[in-house]
Amino acid sequence: MFDFFFNPDGVAILGATTSPLKGGYHILKNLLSGYRGRIYPVNPNYKEILGLPCYPDLESIPGNFDLVIYFIPSRQLPDTIAKCASKGVRGIIIESGGFTEAGPEGAAVQKEALKRAVAAGIRLWGPNCMGFVDAHGPHVFSFLHSAVWPDILRKGDVGFIVQSGMMSAGFLLSALQEGIMGVSKACSIGNKCDINENDILEYFIQDDTTRVIACYLESLVEGRKFLNIARKTDKPIIVLSGGRSEHGARAALSHTASLSGDYVVTRGAFRQAGVVEARDPSELTDMARAFSKIGSCVPNGGPAILTFSGGAGTITTDILDDYGIPPASLSAETLAAVGEVFPAWIKPAHPIDLWVAIEQKGYKEVYRRAIESVMNDPAVDSVLYQSYVSLEIDREFFTWVAEMMKSHGKPVILWVEGRKDLSERIRDMAEEAGIPAFRDLTRCVSILNGLRSHFRKKRGAAC
Amino acid sequence: MFDFFFNPDGVAILGATTSPLKGGYHILKNLLSGYRGRIYPVNPNYKEILGLPCYPDLESIPGNFDLVIYFIPSRQLPDTIAKCASKGVRGIIIESGGFTEAGPEGAAVQKEALKRAVAAGIRLWGPNCMGFVDAHGPHVFSFLHSAVWPDILRKGDVGFIVQSGMMSAGFLLSALQEGIMGVSKACSIGNKCDINENDILEYFIQDDTTRVIACYLESLVEGRKFLNIARKTDKPIIVLSGGRSEHGARAALSHTASLSGDYVVTRGAFRQAGVVEARDPSELTDMARAFSKIGSCVPNGGPAILTFSGGAGTITTDILDDYGIPPASLSAETLAAVGEVFPAWIKPAHPIDLWVAIEQKGYKEVYRRAIESVMNDPAVDSVLYQSYVSLEIDREFFTWVAEMMKSHGKPVILWVEGRKDLSERIRDMAEEAGIPAFRDLTRCVSILNGLRSHFRKKRGAAC
Repeated sequence: MFDFFFNPDGVAILGATTSPLKGGYHILKNLLSGYRGRIYPVNPNYKEILGLPCYPDLESIPGNFDLVIYFIPSRQLPDTIAKCASKGVRGIIIESGGFTEAGPEGAAVQKEALKRAVAAGIRLWGPNCMGFVDAHGPHVFSFLHSAVWPDILRKGDVGFIVQSGMMSAGFLLSALQEGIMGVSKACSIGNKCDINENDILEYFIQDDTTRVIACYLESLVEGRKFLNIARKTDKPIIVLSGGRSEHGARAALSHTASLSGDYVVTRGAFRQAGVVEARDPSELTDMARAFSKIGSCVPNGGPAILTFSGGAGTITTDILDDYGIPPASLSAETLAAVGEVFPAWIKPAHPIDLWVAIEQKGYKEVYRRAIESVMNDPAVDSVLYQSYVSLEIDREFFTWVAEMMKSHGKPVILWVEGRKDLSERIRDMAEEAGIPAFRDLTRCVSILNGLRSHFRKKRGAAC
Repeated sequence: MFDFFFNPDGVAILGATTSPLKGGYHILKNLLSGYRGRIYPVNPNYKEILGLPCYPDLESIPGNFDLVIYFIPSRQLPDTIAKCASKGVRGIIIESGGFTEAGPEGAAVQKEALKRAVAAGIRLWGPNCMGFVDAHGPHVFSFLHSAVWPDILRKGDVGFIVQSGMMSAGFLLSALQEGIMGVSKACSIGNKCDINENDILEYFIQDDTTRVIACYLESLVEGRKFLNIARKTDKPIIVLSGGRSEHGARAALSHTASLSGDYVVTRGAFRQAGVVEARDPSELTDMARAFSKIGSCVPNGGPAILTFSGGAGTITTDILDDYGIPPASLSAETLAAVGEVFPAWIKPAHPIDLWVAIEQKGYKEVYRRAIESVMNDPAVDSVLYQSYVSLEIDREFFTWVAEMMKSHGKPVILWVEGRKDLSERIRDMAEEAGIPAFRDLTRCVSILNGLRSHFRKKRGAAC
């Protein structure tokens, strides 16, 4: 399915160029850094680019090939289709703009190109998009700046579908560098005149390298189909919708030529299908990261709250309440078990402020006891835990927490604020061990909410 | 006012010790690093600590002194009051716990101590608190670990009032290291048996070093007084309330022995008094940072939105809508002026996606033109601006933006996501120039909302 896009036998680049200031250069450079098939730069102005022979047009390329990456002015697209057909091309990734998003003239060009492509049996990806990034290849079929990928692209199990063009750029780099998360593929689908979110969604669902799907969408081409696909899969699907508001919908219309429907209806349908909603780009990537780490959860209790400050427990409880999540009702046995590491003069209550105990026994004994005790309480389905910031906290401890999390099927989410170097170190260690960690408390709670609602829905459907 | 707390003539430390594992050591060490007055460690077990003579009790100290920092078990407090009175002590900062927050016994001790202090004319700060940090002194009257302050404490104009004990620790360090913000004083007021938020608030309002006031409060001792003070000042007051929810209020009760009222009522009263609400610790500090940078604003229009991606503009508009803020209606002249840096085939619409123009003319010319044009539009009262992430972006540019912001009285808030090193560099440059910058779009919008609502209220009251 779509192998001619993702693993094509030969790629031609319309608009390849020698100037590193232009996207056509980076498309070629990106291909050279990863893709192992035949590469054909096309540009009548050059004989050679980056050591490869450059062809004046598609017809001059010897033999057939699967894919064309289109990065020349939009008006040439319809005529290009016929030339592609003659070379056995099966798909065209159109990364230029100037189509429906640019006005009626561009719209007419897009329509004509699609008509000719359908007739020729050629699939179109885009236009007005950034192509895709495949971290497992690894290869990048995009005009995104070629210098950044070698250091940053991390192999993983999150698949991205991004409708907007530039959203994928800074957005993807940010996603790859905040916490520890890898991607399978990130696909920018632009105006989606042919290939749309449902195509990529179906691809991701059968793709073994993708376990979590994160989308930025400004429209649903066939909403019912999207929801049907979502309903049937256990892979988490997280959606940030652009154009939820009236003003936002007008903004979306002007740049990707599509219009969101009534978002209240969409939201309800998403919930029923187990689709998780994100509200901004960083929440989308943070949520994807959490799902990538947390494979299972039995959401039939409430969260236990562990902090090293009473105030932190109070605010955590308030924010949980904003999301309609009551804290777990810890049993007397659980509190007594935690109480064994407390000094005699104070008995823990929930939320559990561990500070007094930490002062006396150190963080390790206290956190181990607290996490073990709340994990064993059937009323607890997850743990929100504010980590003390100390150089003493080590990898071994988080490995143990991650094991507890897996063996109990109860997600742990870590909140770490404090001295910058130390708190970053702790977040990194936790993330490496497989525990999602954030600086922002509200983010911890919104992520927990997303996890609980997804797993509740999926469990309910399975029962 | 309260000079005996903030600039005392002589300080005794009950519970000073030689062990760096204990708070009593750090209180002394912190005093030695900044405070220039007389320092008297008190502990019957030592003759000398950190090179200072150590006294067995308060009575043995030669002469009188203003302040005692109390860090010994709670039950000794009532008897200590009389001894303090005999040495002319005017205030006691009680940093130990074991009072009302610990149960009926502790509550009785706190009550008795307060009775004796009132009779002796001695003011009590705390108990169950962390004292305060004065960045202008600089001096730290707290058991907070002494190693961190020299590198981190930054002089500035934000005053913090924090009710919870440990919230002040990691919280304050995090606040001081995220973006660029300095503090005047950060006061941890704990159980506030005598000195409460209103006392510190009044102090901050007449304090020249404090221009912005940020509070974490779990109760209002005299709500009416708090609101009256807030109504009369132009200094922004930002409040994060702990215990907004029923569960949260119960949690607050168990650890600082106070109970929030009905938060819906509180919220309404806050709004009327121009108090800005924060929802979690990082929003509180981010908001304080923004107010510290933005001295004025004439909120009688809407925000202009500048991005380098259509999707970014759409989502920004959606999130503004969540906060009830319609984007500015840019005039045709403004759009035409921005359009002059665009290629002929595309006309900008609002939100303005600058990418095509940046590609052709580079970021500097395009951003300058866009910012200048929207600033000159009377329908614009603020600018939400997504910065392109590039090594070419320099300090000079942000200095210019900051000047525009000041001369027009229109706040600029920067949203920067992308490659980690580059986006951090840009955020730092912007913050240094005086422009608040965040990675999270929702945070940018919530901050803008806080600024607009505060300045609208204050302007309204002044007219």
